Amino acid sequence: MNSRRCAACKQLRRRCPSDCIFLPYFPPNNPQRFSFVHRIYGASNVGKFLQQVQEHQRANVADSLYYEAYCRIKSPVYGCVGIISILHQEIDRLERELVKVQAEISLVKGQTQIEGQLAQGQQVQLSSSSFHLSTTTPWFN
Amino acid sequence: MNSRRCAACKQLRRRCPSDCIFLPYFPPNNPQRFSFVHRIYGASNVGKFLQQVQEHQRANVADSLYYEAYCRIKSPVYGCVGIISILHQEIDRLERELVKVQAEISLVKGQTQIEGQLAQGQQVQLSSSSFHLSTTTPWFN
Repeated sequence: MNSRRCAACKQLRRRCPSDCIFLPYFPPNNPQRFSFVHRIYGASNVGKFLQQVQEHQRANVADSLYYEAYCRIKSPVYGCVGIISILHQEIDRLERELVKVQAEISLVKGQTQIEGQLAQGQQVQLSSSSFHLSTTTPWFN
Repeated sequence: MNSRRCAACKQLRRRCPSDCIFLPYFPPNNPQRFSFVHRIYGASNVGKFLQQVQEHQRANVADSLYYEAYCRIKSPVYGCVGIISILHQEIDRLERELVKVQAEISLVKGQTQIEGQLAQGQQVQLSSSSFHLSTTTPWFN
């Protein structure tokens, strides 16, 4: 047993064994972290979720459970599904923006091509008109 | 009491009162929906989450809890936080793509401007050279 109990054992008012499943992920200096997951999932479910994965994955389980619990407490109706929805909207907005900007690029490139062709045409016209001018001046002949 | 119990009361093997909190959101024809939230949150927590919001918000609570429970069962380490992470990566990718395409637009517009100025310059040069040509042809004078 530890001299300092983890946040879970402290809140559940029980002894904290040295192999306590909560100990590495719910330190006593952050009682809110355990309190949130306890309110949303219940301590026994949290313990079960930690047990059912490999040891190196448990920190990620604790972090993601805490994040979801935090979201559910702050937003009781949508939880973190509300965030997913906002992110989807943002992706839709960016995709629309990208399509718009890509269309703008095509337009600008198209205009550049037309202007290039026009400029070439004008050069040809100017060259021929300069010849025309040189052969039709009143002082010619 | 209903002649047909809701999915929650059926699974918990209890009577289903007509004012059952689960009844509108966990119909008997979709037992998986309740089974998933029960596995992740526990039936009493789900009932508590439904009770603590207004009636018109309860369908959204049930839907978002089911979505999160589904994600946690399919992805025991990250749950729907994994989806949030993927969506953030997608937003980063789209934002980078947008910056790239916007930079391309600026480049194309800049080139168009330079080409326009060059074309104007060429026209001026051609006009003056046409005059030069007409006044320096061997048959002039």
